Amino acid sequence: METEISQLGEFGLIERLTKDFPLRNPSSKVGVGDDAAILDYGGKEILVTTDLLLEGVHFDLRYVPLKHLGYKAAIVNFSDVYAMMGQPRQITVSLGVSSRFTLEHIEELYSGIRLACEIYGVDLVGGDTSASASGLVISITCLGEAEKESAVRRSTAKPTDIICVSGDLGAAYMGLQLLERENQVAAASGQKEFTPDFAGKEYILERQLKPEARKDIVELLRANGIRPTSMIDVSDGLSSELLHICKDSHVGCRVYEDKIPIDYQTAIMAEEFDMNLVTCALNGGEDYELLFTVPLTEHDNVSKLEGVRVIGYITKPEQGCALVTRDGQEMPLRAQGWNAFKGDE
Amino acid sequence: METEISQLGEFGLIERLTKDFPLRNPSSKVGVGDDAAILDYGGKEILVTTDLLLEGVHFDLRYVPLKHLGYKAAIVNFSDVYAMMGQPRQITVSLGVSSRFTLEHIEELYSGIRLACEIYGVDLVGGDTSASASGLVISITCLGEAEKESAVRRSTAKPTDIICVSGDLGAAYMGLQLLERENQVAAASGQKEFTPDFAGKEYILERQLKPEARKDIVELLRANGIRPTSMIDVSDGLSSELLHICKDSHVGCRVYEDKIPIDYQTAIMAEEFDMNLVTCALNGGEDYELLFTVPLTEHDNVSKLEGVRVIGYITKPEQGCALVTRDGQEMPLRAQGWNAFKGDE
Repeated sequence: METEISQLGEFGLIERLTKDFPLRNPSSKVGVGDDAAILDYGGKEILVTTDLLLEGVHFDLRYVPLKHLGYKAAIVNFSDVYAMMGQPRQITVSLGVSSRFTLEHIEELYSGIRLACEIYGVDLVGGDTSASASGLVISITCLGEAEKESAVRRSTAKPTDIICVSGDLGAAYMGLQLLERENQVAAASGQKEFTPDFAGKEYILERQLKPEARKDIVELLRANGIRPTSMIDVSDGLSSELLHICKDSHVGCRVYEDKIPIDYQTAIMAEEFDMNLVTCALNGGEDYELLFTVPLTEHDNVSKLEGVRVIGYITKPEQGCALVTRDGQEMPLRAQGWNAFKGDE
Repeated sequence: METEISQLGEFGLIERLTKDFPLRNPSSKVGVGDDAAILDYGGKEILVTTDLLLEGVHFDLRYVPLKHLGYKAAIVNFSDVYAMMGQPRQITVSLGVSSRFTLEHIEELYSGIRLACEIYGVDLVGGDTSASASGLVISITCLGEAEKESAVRRSTAKPTDIICVSGDLGAAYMGLQLLERENQVAAASGQKEFTPDFAGKEYILERQLKPEARKDIVELLRANGIRPTSMIDVSDGLSSELLHICKDSHVGCRVYEDKIPIDYQTAIMAEEFDMNLVTCALNGGEDYELLFTVPLTEHDNVSKLEGVRVIGYITKPEQGCALVTRDGQEMPLRAQGWNAFKGDE
């Protein structure tokens, strides 16, 4: 028997959902249950980021399991804090829930949030929970900390800096394409259950459904004494993020097509979908990799790091932003990233 | 000519909306425009609160002007920070916007948020903006500061403490009843414009449409050297909030019916609607007044404060929570406050 949320009421629901979230950080003094949470960062800098996820726009529950959705909703916020070289510490979670969701559904969502909090050492300290007229609404705000003057912004890249990116790109986007195609196939054939054979495609699906925030890369940089001159996480696609750095830093850039890291499963799927692989890697989005610049003098240090690839360099602003293709041509970089205000781009 | 939001795209919209929000607080180091905002509270305690407002659940745009909605969405968060005896400093604003809203609509909403930020000295430092499949979604998170160990919780009331409340109660609820009635009348008569005559009802409408957070009461308490033993803001109704304090503090209470502050416009409307006035004042909600307890020794000090009323006292837990009626009867206090998971209670 599933439980109607209206039986519990708002306060009952909040108590139920938040009881298994212990506070792990000394900076979390008072968590859920008062007008506001009380935090104490002892004079460090505080980072704040927030993300709103709406059903039918950011996720489709026909193929996204609720637990994965909760995990990802937390991760995308942690990623923003890591992209400042900070450490995420607390989140607040606000939910709008329509009547088709039961307590068990929402607990499933929270189990994903809880797992992300456990793995990344983050405390749930507040939120707001309410009915929604249609669909599921998830709004998460994350607070993190950084030593004074140590947060890395996106506006401080300098000409001659080299551009690096972690992991590989385009896989989450190809995972999404695959899920959407299979979902349409299932719908067209009137299947009730959505159980396609995803053998050999695990990596791109995991990148879409259960991404990770690159805490390890931040720690690797710190352990090697490398301080990026600028950093951003890749949520809207490499092109879009590079253009953010260049615009905000008043610089240009050159990125080499043949240096962009791409997994073979991504390449196979792009082939299968007859899509341009580099376009997918440049504009796919939801990779949650870290894109950063380091001084040219760090070239050898950064080249040695596992999971980090040098993909280009920063130029003076008048040189503009360009992709250097395999045959040496320069193509202007354009942001074709996922835009939540446009239909199906 | 109104502007389609899709013409601007997400980043264009964010730039446009946030350009007139200067940073006023030294603690706001970096605001909108990076992965995260950077704050520095210099070792003070940080308060965090968040509120989710959904169209069709929390507000009805047929009679709530967008500017008022923006103002109120900010105020309800500030109120939570004041209810800890803190000072609100920063907000993040996330918006989900369906295609029926134009840029001008959203700018109107932001003009209300901006006004609230100006009046209360709060900085907008971040947010997220996206399309929504249906209706308007507003999620605001507020950060505030308090001196170390000075935030007032709801869990620290003690037997013999006296219970105080600021302002008057029930007016916002009666304002809502009036707006809903007039809206139904207008709809039934096929009127396109919603222009009822609200003469003589300004106060209850203002309490519903443009509430204020009681910064002045917090300052008054501080100026008079009064430190509440517990405090909460009245968002769900006096009964509900008192029960929160009593449950979390493990105490009981007695509240006197004839001490509950009620404005005469509230009384007149309750009469007109044939509703029980005390029930409205106890359970109406959205008053955003401050409910707090002080030690008995502060009785004379607190009684002198303008805009503060002593309404009862805290008891041992075994005495339970009760309303003492005009004829001396004790009725158990029950939370009938507005519950976002129930229909039209």
